[in-house]
Amino acid sequence: MTNKLIAFQGEHGAYSEEAAFEFFGNDAVTIPCKSFENVFNEVNEESATHGLIPVENSLAGSIHRNYDLLLRNTLTITSEYHLRVKHCLLGLPSVELDQVKQVYSHPQALAQCENNLKNLGLPGIAEYDTAGSARLLKDNNNQFSAAIASKHAAKVYGLNILKEGFEDNPNNYTRFLAIQRENEKLESKTIENHKTSIVFGLKNSPGILFEALSSFATRKIDLSKIESRPLIGKLWEYYFYIDFIGHQSDPNCLAAIEELSDISNFFRVLGSYPRHQID
Amino acid sequence: MTNKLIAFQGEHGAYSEEAAFEFFGNDAVTIPCKSFENVFNEVNEESATHGLIPVENSLAGSIHRNYDLLLRNTLTITSEYHLRVKHCLLGLPSVELDQVKQVYSHPQALAQCENNLKNLGLPGIAEYDTAGSARLLKDNNNQFSAAIASKHAAKVYGLNILKEGFEDNPNNYTRFLAIQRENEKLESKTIENHKTSIVFGLKNSPGILFEALSSFATRKIDLSKIESRPLIGKLWEYYFYIDFIGHQSDPNCLAAIEELSDISNFFRVLGSYPRHQID
Repeated sequence: MTNKLIAFQGEHGAYSEEAAFEFFGNDAVTIPCKSFENVFNEVNEESATHGLIPVENSLAGSIHRNYDLLLRNTLTITSEYHLRVKHCLLGLPSVELDQVKQVYSHPQALAQCENNLKNLGLPGIAEYDTAGSARLLKDNNNQFSAAIASKHAAKVYGLNILKEGFEDNPNNYTRFLAIQRENEKLESKTIENHKTSIVFGLKNSPGILFEALSSFATRKIDLSKIESRPLIGKLWEYYFYIDFIGHQSDPNCLAAIEELSDISNFFRVLGSYPRHQID
Repeated sequence: MTNKLIAFQGEHGAYSEEAAFEFFGNDAVTIPCKSFENVFNEVNEESATHGLIPVENSLAGSIHRNYDLLLRNTLTITSEYHLRVKHCLLGLPSVELDQVKQVYSHPQALAQCENNLKNLGLPGIAEYDTAGSARLLKDNNNQFSAAIASKHAAKVYGLNILKEGFEDNPNNYTRFLAIQRENEKLESKTIENHKTSIVFGLKNSPGILFEALSSFATRKIDLSKIESRPLIGKLWEYYFYIDFIGHQSDPNCLAAIEELSDISNFFRVLGSYPRHQID
């Protein structure tokens, strides 16, 4: 029996569930959640061993809601995974492409397949999510429609793949983070080739962000991401989220962390985890 | 006759229209647009003299769509304006607060009034936008419902203000930017107390963002905002948007701009404009 219970946002067949199986293996048990908040709750309440949350898509940008939830909760980031988002055009098993009159999907998936839809002369109709549009096709036995969703959704709902790689731009990746309870016993790992995510708030003084970044620059620690979110209640002040290359236990990184936390009015390490590099 | 034709996103009564009248004066003529893209188009096609676009809310964060559109178009930012977002609970003229059974508004406005709605025991129902929910109330002569929208919407649709300042957090401001065609003759202004917005892409090398920020830090130029957006087609590379205090014609700022543009693979000044400081 598996001991991996993975909470994800969406319904069965979602890209997040595809990422869960690719990363945790096919013996993982997935738990669909209505909202990102519910994913965090499932892990907090020990109904799930891990949550898997998308934080950024290479075409659409950051998913800010999850940055806010990482701050509000006390879970630890233990892994990252880059999913190549391959949109598929799906139809009922007996349906041929030339019978399709319209295509259902999430507005973002429709936008990412805009040119291919245009070339086929097919209008897109917005649905709540990609997996849901695949499920609806099946439930309604809809012969004249197709859905844009994952290959995984085709398997879940017994649909036929009419077109694979239906997205206009192949540089379509979503970065996922796995989150776990802080007190969970983690396997001991070497600290080689790790990434660390931190969040901090700075005292409001000129040049302070530069000073914050200099903690890393002077130690030749490379930053892979910087993101800011408004600090609720303080006007035009921000929390900053930084990912840097290195492990929080590495003495060089630890010195940078200590220097930065000295000039911060809030500071937290969200986790150190192995880098997932795309070939 | 006014020569100020202001394109804004939304319908009459929207917060963007309220901001337009507050900033440009009551003799401005406002042009409602279905999308932010249409606002840019109205200015490009000279149907409007100005566009007024929200770029950030102090509680909800940045409106990234407008950062992308600033990049894609060649319009110039000529002003900024901070609107204090004061939500009002609106009803039909003859309706009292205790007759109201439900409240319509945009999900974000409902969320920002969550506690006050709870205290009154009123459920919120999501509508497409705030002004639209006020208009619907009027059009349907709905006696048992209220809408959350601007004071301006009450005037536009002849509604009664049941509660003013209905938002839970008074630190609710939206920052708007006015955009104009580049070739338009702008009034000559002193360069005192200005802000400048730039966008740039950096060569992908370690510490390059730190190097970019050092162009400003070494000259004691204060940054008021930094924002990143994914560079479409390049994986995990970003455009950076920076606002700094100072005018692009100021020699100190000009030197920083030149240094930064030397290490950028893309660089554009989006505009210098008078600072709007909140008292």
